[in-house]
Amino acid sequence: MKLWDKGVELDKLIEDYTVGSDYIIDDKLVKYDCIASKAHAKMLNETGILDQDELNSLVAELDNIILLHSRGLFHINKSDEDCHTAIENHLVEKLGETGKKIHTARSRNDQVLTAIRLYEKDELSELKELSGTFIKALESVINKYGNIDLPGYTHMQRAMPSGVSLLMGAFVESARDNILLIDSVFDLIDQSPLGTAAGFGVPVLNIDREMTADLMGFDRVQANPLYAQLSRGKFEATVVHLCSQIMYDINKLATDLVMFSMSEFGFVSLPENFCTGSSIMPQKKNPDVLELARAKYHVVLGEELKIKSLTANLISGYNRDLQLTKEPLFTAIETTKQSLKIMSFVLDGIIFNKDKCILSDELFATEKAYKLVDEGMPFRDAYKKISRREPQ
Amino acid sequence: MKLWDKGVELDKLIEDYTVGSDYIIDDKLVKYDCIASKAHAKMLNETGILDQDELNSLVAELDNIILLHSRGLFHINKSDEDCHTAIENHLVEKLGETGKKIHTARSRNDQVLTAIRLYEKDELSELKELSGTFIKALESVINKYGNIDLPGYTHMQRAMPSGVSLLMGAFVESARDNILLIDSVFDLIDQSPLGTAAGFGVPVLNIDREMTADLMGFDRVQANPLYAQLSRGKFEATVVHLCSQIMYDINKLATDLVMFSMSEFGFVSLPENFCTGSSIMPQKKNPDVLELARAKYHVVLGEELKIKSLTANLISGYNRDLQLTKEPLFTAIETTKQSLKIMSFVLDGIIFNKDKCILSDELFATEKAYKLVDEGMPFRDAYKKISRREPQ
Amino acid sequence: MKLWDKGVELDKLIEDYTVGSDYIIDDKLVKYDCIASKAHAKMLNETGILDQDELNSLVAELDNIILLHSRGLFHINKSDEDCHTAIENHLVEKLGETGKKIHTARSRNDQVLTAIRLYEKDELSELKELSGTFIKALESVINKYGNIDLPGYTHMQRAMPSGVSLLMGAFVESARDNILLIDSVFDLIDQSPLGTAAGFGVPVLNIDREMTADLMGFDRVQANPLYAQLSRGKFEATVVHLCSQIMYDINKLATDLVMFSMSEFGFVSLPENFCTGSSIMPQKKNPDVLELARAKYHVVLGEELKIKSLTANLISGYNRDLQLTKEPLFTAIETTKQSLKIMSFVLDGIIFNKDKCILSDELFATEKAYKLVDEGMPFRDAYKKISRREPQ
Amino acid sequence: MKLWDKGVELDKLIEDYTVGSDYIIDDKLVKYDCIASKAHAKMLNETGILDQDELNSLVAELDNIILLHSRGLFHINKSDEDCHTAIENHLVEKLGETGKKIHTARSRNDQVLTAIRLYEKDELSELKELSGTFIKALESVINKYGNIDLPGYTHMQRAMPSGVSLLMGAFVESARDNILLIDSVFDLIDQSPLGTAAGFGVPVLNIDREMTADLMGFDRVQANPLYAQLSRGKFEATVVHLCSQIMYDINKLATDLVMFSMSEFGFVSLPENFCTGSSIMPQKKNPDVLELARAKYHVVLGEELKIKSLTANLISGYNRDLQLTKEPLFTAIETTKQSLKIMSFVLDGIIFNKDKCILSDELFATEKAYKLVDEGMPFRDAYKKISRREPQ
Repeated sequence: MKLWDKGVELDKLIEDYTVGSDYIIDDKLVKYDCIASKAHAKMLNETGILDQDELNSLVAELDNIILLHSRGLFHINKSDEDCHTAIENHLVEKLGETGKKIHTARSRNDQVLTAIRLYEKDELSELKELSGTFIKALESVINKYGNIDLPGYTHMQRAMPSGVSLLMGAFVESARDNILLIDSVFDLIDQSPLGTAAGFGVPVLNIDREMTADLMGFDRVQANPLYAQLSRGKFEATVVHLCSQIMYDINKLATDLVMFSMSEFGFVSLPENFCTGSSIMPQKKNPDVLELARAKYHVVLGEELKIKSLTANLISGYNRDLQLTKEPLFTAIETTKQSLKIMSFVLDGIIFNKDKCILSDELFATEKAYKLVDEGMPFRDAYKKISRREPQ
Repeated sequence: MKLWDKGVELDKLIEDYTVGSDYIIDDKLVKYDCIASKAHAKMLNETGILDQDELNSLVAELDNIILLHSRGLFHINKSDEDCHTAIENHLVEKLGETGKKIHTARSRNDQVLTAIRLYEKDELSELKELSGTFIKALESVINKYGNIDLPGYTHMQRAMPSGVSLLMGAFVESARDNILLIDSVFDLIDQSPLGTAAGFGVPVLNIDREMTADLMGFDRVQANPLYAQLSRGKFEATVVHLCSQIMYDINKLATDLVMFSMSEFGFVSLPENFCTGSSIMPQKKNPDVLELARAKYHVVLGEELKIKSLTANLISGYNRDLQLTKEPLFTAIETTKQSLKIMSFVLDGIIFNKDKCILSDELFATEKAYKLVDEGMPFRDAYKKISRREPQ
Repeated sequence: MKLWDKGVELDKLIEDYTVGSDYIIDDKLVKYDCIASKAHAKMLNETGILDQDELNSLVAELDNIILLHSRGLFHINKSDEDCHTAIENHLVEKLGETGKKIHTARSRNDQVLTAIRLYEKDELSELKELSGTFIKALESVINKYGNIDLPGYTHMQRAMPSGVSLLMGAFVESARDNILLIDSVFDLIDQSPLGTAAGFGVPVLNIDREMTADLMGFDRVQANPLYAQLSRGKFEATVVHLCSQIMYDINKLATDLVMFSMSEFGFVSLPENFCTGSSIMPQKKNPDVLELARAKYHVVLGEELKIKSLTANLISGYNRDLQLTKEPLFTAIETTKQSLKIMSFVLDGIIFNKDKCILSDELFATEKAYKLVDEGMPFRDAYKKISRREPQ
Repeated sequence: MKLWDKGVELDKLIEDYTVGSDYIIDDKLVKYDCIASKAHAKMLNETGILDQDELNSLVAELDNIILLHSRGLFHINKSDEDCHTAIENHLVEKLGETGKKIHTARSRNDQVLTAIRLYEKDELSELKELSGTFIKALESVINKYGNIDLPGYTHMQRAMPSGVSLLMGAFVESARDNILLIDSVFDLIDQSPLGTAAGFGVPVLNIDREMTADLMGFDRVQANPLYAQLSRGKFEATVVHLCSQIMYDINKLATDLVMFSMSEFGFVSLPENFCTGSSIMPQKKNPDVLELARAKYHVVLGEELKIKSLTANLISGYNRDLQLTKEPLFTAIETTKQSLKIMSFVLDGIIFNKDKCILSDELFATEKAYKLVDEGMPFRDAYKKISRREPQ
């Protein structure tokens, strides 16, 4: 039964189209909707809408759903539409009248906002942790291979001396800045939308939004109820942008490593059990994992675009279009987490081949020019002197 | 067992990351890979690599896979990586040595290209048919409501008299042009990549690419093997662009209908069983189906971007990144097909409310000016005369 | 004076924001608006709104504008807003009452549509010609260097023997398919929007849309006036998508050539006067032109996105938002033309270094396996036999 | 003369293509390059490369360039390529040998990074200030019209009572969060890249990066020189994402106001001198400024995509592709600043029409249901009771 059921059955084709994959992807939100529902129930008890017995039975059953779900035993049916309805239906089935009261003073609009916000906060924490792991993996490469030289490239031409330390250190510093950004985004979204209902607040009834925000661990209340709706899609765009920043580094590192593992370079090897082969060419040992890590940056870009494009040119307040921001959000976050994990894992196994990592003479042209400068020649003259005698 | 198996086991984490969802989404390609494999087997027989018995048993087993698959009884395991391996493994299991011979003179690279090309051709045909259905649905609205007037808007301001015929007729004409484009794209991609192997052709062995192209119903052979690889992602971008053009019309029609169904307009109603309700507001009857049809245009945009972005800045020849063009292609096509179907269905049920569709006076200002012109006044003077007396 | 002037002055800030760069970029449309205006005038004469003298003086003055413009002597002022107003103001200034009559039975909406359509047709013809030049440049590389071998890469790993002919031939075949697509897009858009006015046709007055379409060289009339509006942005998206397909090839060719010009490969050199240097590293000779050709693909992608995104979620009929489709269209076309030209030019100068283009042994592994197949061994067994003895 | 001039002249066509519009758009960076050059000169003096006289004359001439530039008297020639070269050429022309020394221990790579970083910091400060002005404009609407009711919409259907205060308040709260994000992005990028040279640091010579960072007002040094290059494009993506967040609010507010100004609503009017007219329809008064503000969000999206897409799949270190991140950055920032200004200006003039802003009965359905809840009925029962009796 749907939350808005009025006795008219929704056409089957329409239902399939509108529900889409929500009943599948909402699996990620079950836990968070239960957490928010418990906070909401406690608040309804505080304000007199639920008595203590009702509260106790609701909290117990919501905890039970979390437990069932963690064991793979709580499912959302297509006819439920989404996790919010599946949970309320379960409560009504188990608790009868009491179950019906949980939806007092809230709407699915603020429910889904709250569940997504809680989900995002958890995921941001995990992205931070995984970024930490990634940094450790980079540092361990420096520990192992940090004394190995590498040519440094500009315009993809040999430019100046570089090395494993400098290269990996660049990604360490970048990942640390990513963590700064994770923290900022976390702070930005750390506000509770619960109690904003359908974007216009809750009339008649007394609710305590500070209380639910505290119970769920939010830093503050998102005060204006219409802003809560306005932030749907907008906050998601920022979270996914953050993912794209993390994936950008992975894209670049993967691009470096794929090139460095070409036989023309030979700087880097992957363990054999990290590589796949070719169905036709017996000799091939391919760095597929790096190619896919490189490619997945673009998946995140596509998901970001969906969120940023579909929410535009629409008036304020909830529009059903917003439902389609969920899947891009989930996909972008999952992709980023998996890619951070796999790159950390690849870095643990990667081999730098010291004997192939040779600095050629032309890399020292700048150094030579600077030596002339150090002896007193103006830089532009030193530059010209060296450029004339260097093989180009 | 993988096609490239050499006795070293791929790390489990790496496998999960590289296989991704391929083993699921490749379900769409099973039939097409079997069709291509049958053509390939016949050619191998013609050129003496397979004898007649081997050919017969391969064709019979490939037909059997098509049958099993149509009944939901052929599955791709994660360890198979993709449909091509699953099919070859099945053939080897059933036919032993004979099964091993099917991969002679081809690579997974041209196999996947061929299967996708056949899939795209079928889907383009279906998009053409569904566009025809969409046109019929628009025409049926004209038949029912074609005499109803509507205000015509520019800048979202009432501009000139319009009507249901003009509005629906615009989408009819646009859909007809979409069909022109479908035909062009079909012609463009109607070339067989089979026999291009890994992008560098098949050495030593004689193959007959014209024969396989004919057997599969292609218009011509895609001659240059490296161009076959170059066209991967490129052709897909054009197919998905085409989807975006179809979805653009649906986006606009949905946007019109959502606005016209606002109570401020009331021009249009949806049958009650096409609408969903609100979990908090008892009075609501929401046009969710139109909102989602509007939003899905942007999903297609996101998928198009993925394809266009991930394939760039890569050197010629196959890169594993290309694997990630499959899911966007499938998603874009499925979304477009579903949306054409649902919009045709919605149009069948939609109601124009004649009594609400009133032409207001200001819509006739241009007409009045033109009457003055008809009487001999220069247009700019007539314009100024009318603009001064019209309420603005 | 603006076409819609009613005696109230538009606020200066608002004017700056709304006119934007239109008065600059519309320079590209002056010629086409004059061509369309001449056709329109002839039709107004045919239908009795203009007498022969009026027609003669209008045609003469419009031809004069074309001449002035070709000499850089016709300018659009910011206060004119756009080329259409600049031209009409010029006509009124020169011809008085007669000038005022030219705008009878048309709107700026169909004027701009018509001018852009004519512009697009010309540009598509030029893109076709430039693609022809590009093909010739590729073929001339084949003539010069076609017997040079190159390693063929998959996964950026040495895979099988390739060569300059195969590589350049791939781009030839792709460019030929681009020309197919150019022709299709030309056919698609070859329809006259003149006479659709503001999207709701011309009331009262008799107009002959077939006549103006013929005079301007269109294949047919775009019948439904609201479809004319609907196609604004939509046709542009397809034209720009076409540009992205052409640029895709350029991106890939540039990527190949940049890599092949790395000292680790040395396959390719650019003439010294094609390269730029570094401000700090005296030895550098950088392939900037190729890097920028590579990068400009993404500029086209960004412009395509603007067009596809800004037109969505808007109701049918003209919205001012559409003005912003002009600049992306112009930028995408200009970028593509310039890039085709520069790549043809670079190909004319490029040098393949035969002594560096050596086929290494591992490239022949497939060939060896196929020789075993040719001797009767099943492919999978031959593959395994070879893979065991190849250095990996 | 180019910084890298070695006596071979760059082909004219190649020069046109590679310089592009840099010599025009770099005008924005002249001031910042001078500021950075002054800091660099002081450091070179401190470390003994420049003597006090040389320093004094360089600083004086750099100040002179800033002055000339502010008066429109300093121009970058096409043959200069960019602002960095134009400035160095100017210094050499005026100061001879001393001018040649300024480029010691830096590269154009860190020069452009530094100038852009300083530019971004200034622009972020301005965006913050303009967001403040925007908030004031919203608050002034609340002061004037805050007691006016508006229907609140979900699914574009009348849902619950809203009002001018709630609506404008949502954008106030959102703009405040934008300012939080501006501050975070400012902190993120507030690190000095000067001294990282071409991405591999400065050999031989002693430089003091802390000193230049302090002199330019940076919070800290961007330590790893390769990270400085890695952050090019990456930081820009975040700055432009921030712009897209600001523009998102403007897009939504403009969308609301355009709809509310339709005659079917009449909630809002724009002053006549804010509106443009139609060239054909004498009665029209169009909200073009709002339509363009709505559309410009998508321009920013397109620019963001360019930056995010063109930098990907490239190896670490400077690639000339990065040059093309400048124009999107400048366009996105300019568009956002102009749009914030124009929306603040529009808000100052906008009129809410109290007599048209009527709350209709169906907006109170939730309130009625909650009254039943307040009297003890479970919410789901109250909901059903009300939904049966409400006109739908």
